[in-house]
Order: sequence, then C-alpha cells, then structure tokens
Amino acid sequence: MHKTNILITSAGRRTKLIEYFKKEFYGSGKVITADCSSLAPALYTSDKGYIVPPITDSGYLTKIMDICARENIAAVLSLIDPELLFLAESRKAFEDIGVKIIAPDYRGIDICNDKTKMHDFLGKQGFDNIKTYNGLDVFSDAYNAGEAAFPVFVKKRFGSASSGALKINSMAGLKAALIENGDLLIQDFIDGVEFGIDIYVDLISREVVSVFIKRKFYMRSGETDKAVSIINPAIANLVVEFVKSLNLAGPLDMDIIENDNRYYIVDINCRFGGGYPLAYECGENYPSYIINNIQGRENIARIGQYPEDVKMMKHDDVVIIRP
Amino acid sequence: MHKTNILITSAGRRTKLIEYFKKEFYGSGKVITADCSSLAPALYTSDKGYIVPPITDSGYLTKIMDICARENIAAVLSLIDPELLFLAESRKAFEDIGVKIIAPDYRGIDICNDKTKMHDFLGKQGFDNIKTYNGLDVFSDAYNAGEAAFPVFVKKRFGSASSGALKINSMAGLKAALIENGDLLIQDFIDGVEFGIDIYVDLISREVVSVFIKRKFYMRSGETDKAVSIINPAIANLVVEFVKSLNLAGPLDMDIIENDNRYYIVDINCRFGGGYPLAYECGENYPSYIINNIQGRENIARIGQYPEDVKMMKHDDVVIIRP
Repeated sequence: MHKTNILITSAGRRTKLIEYFKKEFYGSGKVITADCSSLAPALYTSDKGYIVPPITDSGYLTKIMDICARENIAAVLSLIDPELLFLAESRKAFEDIGVKIIAPDYRGIDICNDKTKMHDFLGKQGFDNIKTYNGLDVFSDAYNAGEAAFPVFVKKRFGSASSGALKINSMAGLKAALIENGDLLIQDFIDGVEFGIDIYVDLISREVVSVFIKRKFYMRSGETDKAVSIINPAIANLVVEFVKSLNLAGPLDMDIIENDNRYYIVDINCRFGGGYPLAYECGENYPSYIINNIQGRENIARIGQYPEDVKMMKHDDVVIIRP
Repeated sequence: MHKTNILITSAGRRTKLIEYFKKEFYGSGKVITADCSSLAPALYTSDKGYIVPPITDSGYLTKIMDICARENIAAVLSLIDPELLFLAESRKAFEDIGVKIIAPDYRGIDICNDKTKMHDFLGKQGFDNIKTYNGLDVFSDAYNAGEAAFPVFVKKRFGSASSGALKINSMAGLKAALIENGDLLIQDFIDGVEFGIDIYVDLISREVVSVFIKRKFYMRSGETDKAVSIINPAIANLVVEFVKSLNLAGPLDMDIIENDNRYYIVDINCRFGGGYPLAYECGENYPSYIINNIQGRENIARIGQYPEDVKMMKHDDVVIIRP
C-alpha cells in the first residue's frame, strides 16, 4: 500500500495533536511538521520538522511544495487561521503535484476568518446573532437612544486566540479601546455558558461526521484550558445546519455562547481547535478520519456517540534543546 | 531515616514541577498537593492530591494543618503569591506541629507582593529603578512639564501573572485604563531585553546558593514560554545583593529588564516561577536543596555553573478525568 505522509504546517506548540497524529499514522505514513520558528515545540515531536520562512514570505509556497515533493506528502494541514486562505488559493498548484489541502473552499474560510462577514452571514441565514455595532458612532447613537448598554464586548475583526477581546464597562473605556486599536467590533456582551465544538466534515462526502461538544470552564491565551464533554442535540443540530450552509470541510472548531436558551455562534475556525485533545480522548478520532479521506474512503457519520462528563485539564510540559 | 514528606499548596497546573519533586523525593518521602479546584491538573500527578477550601476561607488553615498531621508532612511550599503572606503569618502554628514553611519572612514577602512598596524599597536601597507615577495627576503634571512621555506601562499594584499589565500609547488610553481599573501603577515603558531569574536561598545558612539566568523570548499568560540559559555575572551580582538586602529565603523568581546597560528589577515572587523547568533541566536542582534543608543540611553555593544556550519551549499536555 502507498504510504500516506502528512505535512502539518504552522505547527507551533500543538505537540499533543502531533502525538495523536503520529499514533494514528503509525504504519500508514509519517507526520512531518513545518514552522517559521526554530522554537516551535511541535517541530521536535513530529517524525521530522522543517523550519520554513514566515507565511507572508514570497518564498513560502515554494518551500512548502518542495517539502511535499521531498517527503512524498499526500496532504497538507495548517494549524493557524491566517494560513488557511493562502492554502485554499494554492489548492490547484498542490493538486497538480498530487497533494490534498485539508481545508474548506476559499469562500467558507474567508467568511469564517472575518468576524464582520460572519456576522452578516449569520444574520442573512437567520441564525441567532449577537447585536453588533459597526463603529463608535453607530454604538453611540444606539446608546443615546437607550437601545444599547454597557458592558459591551470588543474584539478584533480578524483576530484569533481572543486577541484584543475585552469586556468594556464605560463609554470612556470604549473610546480608549478604539483609540488603542481602531479595528475592533463592538458587540452586546452576552453573559452565558460557553461551549467549544470540534467538528469533522468528511472531505469526500461533505457530510458532517462528528460533532463533539464540550462545556468550557476556563480559558487561557484564548485556548480552552479546562472543559467537560456534554451531549446537546440542539447544539449538534445547529452546528450541522450552519456547517452545511457554508459548505465547510475538514476539521473545524466552533465557539457557541448560550443565553436564555438561545445559542449564539461567536466564532468558527477552519482548523483543529486548541481544545481538540478532549475530543480525541473521548474517541472522536479525526486523524483516522483524515487517513481514510486521504486514502479515498468516506467516513461514516457518528454524531453524539461519546461519553459525557469526561473532563480535560491542560498543563505545561517542556521541550529542551541542548547546544 | 525519618521520611521527608512535602505538601505543595495551590499546586494548580504546575505538573512539571511536581514531577521534578517526585523524582527527587523518591526514596526520601512523598509529594502531596492541595488545591481548591478539582480541575487542578497537579492534584493528579502528585503522590496524593487534596481538594481544599479557597485560601480566603476561614477553614483553610485548619484543613492544611490537618493534612500535615495526617500525611506526616515535614514542610509546606506554596506556588502562588497571595498564599505566601498567610503562610508566613502562620509559621509559628506550623512549627509547633513540626512543619517548616518554605518561604521568606513576612516583611520580605510583603514588599515583594506589593509593587509600590517594592519600588520604594529599590529606590531607598539605591538600585536602578523604573520611574513610577503615583496616579494620573502626578503623571499628567510630569507629562505637561515634558518629563514623561508615551508609551507608558501600567500594571496592577498587587497583580501577578502579568494581570492588567499593558503598554499604553496615549493619554486617552491611559485615562480609560484607569477608569476600567483604578489600582494601576503607571511606569515609564522600558523597551529592553527581558531576563527571568530562578534563585535559591538556603533556608539554614540564608546564603544565595543558586542564581539561574534565562533570557526570555516569549511570554504567555504572564509565564515564560520560551527562554534560553545565559551566564551574566552583572545580573548574578545584582540578584545576590538584592536578595540579601531583603533577607529573602527559599525558591524565588525574579524579572529583570536590561536597557542601555542598566538592569531594572521589575518583579520578584517568593516562590517557584513558571520558568523553573529550564533551571532544573540545566542541573539547578532546587527540590534536592529543599530535601537537604528539611533534613537539616546546608547547601553549598554553586552560582553560574550551568550550561549556556540551553533552550526551553513550553507546550500543552492534558490530564483527562473519566467519570
């Protein structure tokens, strides 16, 4: 059987995910990583790690395609949002050398990466949507008319890892936040229960084959640090409907806030989320789904068939490099 | 030989440190942990973990002393700043049941925990000191007189883990930060090289026996995420002088910024710092120093005798609890 090697780019500190991939790919192929920093721990836990230029570098694509050729790579998977559009744009070039890009189509990524476009999309499709104010003037008018109130939540339009996300309690605070950073969305602050959802959409059938729901207890640097698995058919149905509406594919990560029995989609990333280890530990084996898809096999949908009340707590390990 | 069991309180997510303790205490005694959260990963990597009330609870001291009696504990070590003063205050009660508290005296902790007191202390002792403005009025006067400029750095007087620490670029931004949080110190922003220093002061001789210096490359949630070991006699001498001036003891963690050949002490914590794993991996074995001290033996000073250019990168591991 032909070897199925995978290249995981912008691998960063996602060593646990790399370990899962190595375990599942064992016997099928190698797990190769790439990152622009020699201090990316994942480089040292994969079968082989490549230090590459930053994704903004003009030579990046060539370098990644070189690695694909040299390592007989079957598929490329990125672990950060800013790289997804770039890979989707280059899909044809990769397919020409026999390499699959594990990511949705350009349009889906474009909407998911841009919180303004996502908000508009949710509204047009009729999903529950957090009220969003397009700039300080719009918010001030609503505030003066008694239609908006503090606290509000601001976040970066193109941010990930909660960058710039902030609860703001006063007009002075809001003005200041906008002075410090002009490209912020202003939203109603929803004080609700937070859920993180891992999703796998089969790359061949385009069916949602896994929806793993966890309640988040604690965040750290924008990543789920503590969480517990739960079953919630209302969330699962919402997720399937939303994912199909955007024709997404591959591994996805979604954040939902529940308030007063309404479920608000607050963010979706077209890649593995930082909380995926809990899904894997509960039997939601996306690396094996990826092997199947790379080797031309469809996966069978298996939604809501994991144990409830499994808890995950993250903690630090270290990689040491000696001179 | 009498067993030497240690109780590590507020152990949180410091699993790597717990592993080092277990390795070094193997044969000498057990490593017991306590935390108020059942989701503290360290509880599950120690020999035994106790879930206890929060440190602010009136029953906390009784609970910790009960554990000391039941587990035949020789010494108690806390991993968070807010607990240190409390343990120092209760030292006599612990000593009466034969338990050592591994922390400096009350006065030293009090100054280290309070950034205003620390700034005053540094000034009086003649150490290089970052210019600090006691409130917005003082800063505004200095700014209008051309004696202060943006950016400035604000941080919480009693904060740890970089909580509330922020670079601010404008008067509007500063005013807003102070509206959102009144208890902030305003300091000149020093754009320099950051060093994190692990220190061990012998509990018997009160001599500084280890000064481990690392250059920090990257911070995450206020913790050193990537760092490299370096030798720097100027920093080592400054650290020894400062530690002696405050009569500190036990494991300490210090932050220094270097700018234009001046070394500014920006923070010191009277406990193991989050970057300690690099020191241990370079042979600076504080758990073994603690065993020696508990068993009545002094440690021999061994400053600057570690390998340079050893790099550390942190990454996540997970603890899973199944129902």
